[in-house]
Amino acid sequence: MRNLKVLMAYKGTAYHGFQRQDNAITVQEVVEKCVSKVLNHNVVINGCSRTDTGVHANNYCFSVLTDSIIPPRNFIRGVNGHLPADISILECDEAAPEFHARFSCIGKEYEYRIHNSESKNPFETDLSYHYRRPFDADLVRYAAKKFIGTHNFASFCSNYNEKQDTVRTIYDFSVEINGDSVKMLVKGNGFLYNMIRIMVGTLLAVNEGNIKADDLESIMKAKNRQLAGRTAAAHGLYLNRIFY
Amino acid sequence: MRNLKVLMAYKGTAYHGFQRQDNAITVQEVVEKCVSKVLNHNVVINGCSRTDTGVHANNYCFSVLTDSIIPPRNFIRGVNGHLPADISILECDEAAPEFHARFSCIGKEYEYRIHNSESKNPFETDLSYHYRRPFDADLVRYAAKKFIGTHNFASFCSNYNEKQDTVRTIYDFSVEINGDSVKMLVKGNGFLYNMIRIMVGTLLAVNEGNIKADDLESIMKAKNRQLAGRTAAAHGLYLNRIFY
Repeated sequence: MRNLKVLMAYKGTAYHGFQRQDNAITVQEVVEKCVSKVLNHNVVINGCSRTDTGVHANNYCFSVLTDSIIPPRNFIRGVNGHLPADISILECDEAAPEFHARFSCIGKEYEYRIHNSESKNPFETDLSYHYRRPFDADLVRYAAKKFIGTHNFASFCSNYNEKQDTVRTIYDFSVEINGDSVKMLVKGNGFLYNMIRIMVGTLLAVNEGNIKADDLESIMKAKNRQLAGRTAAAHGLYLNRIFY
Repeated sequence: MRNLKVLMAYKGTAYHGFQRQDNAITVQEVVEKCVSKVLNHNVVINGCSRTDTGVHANNYCFSVLTDSIIPPRNFIRGVNGHLPADISILECDEAAPEFHARFSCIGKEYEYRIHNSESKNPFETDLSYHYRRPFDADLVRYAAKKFIGTHNFASFCSNYNEKQDTVRTIYDFSVEINGDSVKMLVKGNGFLYNMIRIMVGTLLAVNEGNIKADDLESIMKAKNRQLAGRTAAAHGLYLNRIFY
């Protein structure tokens, strides 16, 4: 049995996230249909992560078991030939039998894109968050650094319950500005439900003067979602890299 | 009477070009409707250029006459409040009475975007031309230089007739590569119908070995559309800058 490790990119706008659901179209369902056609048998793919409705992926990894002898190059071409315009297979490699896209993952990087301008960008509808207010990059960078390290992120989680382990480690949180485009890159060992979007919404609250950067540590300690900022819009978020 | 000079960006996918037509939706029609609402009188806007169906604009200039005393900043906000997601007003300034977006123009720059990869880019559907073959940047750059200068571009025009003045001056033709993204920038004093797209299609034919770079001068001299390459797809083309 071969274990194929596959990398793909998708625009999430049309999908109710990655994971298969009844009564809603998901990336998993569409990809499984196309992969099944190419491999000539029904497959279940193992995705590296759930993603929310409207969230995108620059690099999303899934693994799939098959007895097919199709070469990886032909797999890429074949599946891409069936996929719609908003999903694209980028790479395919043979993986060790024990590799699993989700359980083997040791870290992830997310990107959050903001178009910071009075006028919207007509080429980035659904692809970046349009934010009109002045953006204080130095202040936001200073605040973002507070998240780096190992903390309890219960205040930055949408469905927190006390039984859940909400300790995570953030390795890096950078804020890059290029003209009116702002890109935040967050690298960590794992993320809670809506954690990146709540961290971004909190940084925007800091930018707007509604939360103080120096209060972020006490907000983390309080384990209270109410103290953090809003959940930033899904359509600015991209799963950017998966580390194994 | 004030003469407003307005800069906008649009994604051309949903429109039959800029210029108003019967029985087809155009950028001009949509913008005129929104501007008329904000200025409180019916307007005809003077665009800097026609663009083809599916062609985009990073910067498109139009001028409009009005007796309204609306401040430029409010004009921008007001019109943007009415426009659909794929058109955005970027700037508005008072212009001299004799300014006309089309007749005052002394030059234009177009951009042509190519996604050069085996796999398509799911975020650039309709926004770049997907080109799978290996791209020889040095060869294409060498060939592109042949277009620079004052030449008769009749071979690079879709609707050539002998009465038309087909002499144009190209100031610059650059080819930038960034990962799998190729960007061509063409600056000139004016362009014939489909001229950029035929020049790009011809450069791709050079890349593919079907036209020799050193034959481009004789192809220009021949004034024969059949000798040039194909017309590259509209959706990779952007009106990038207008010079006054």
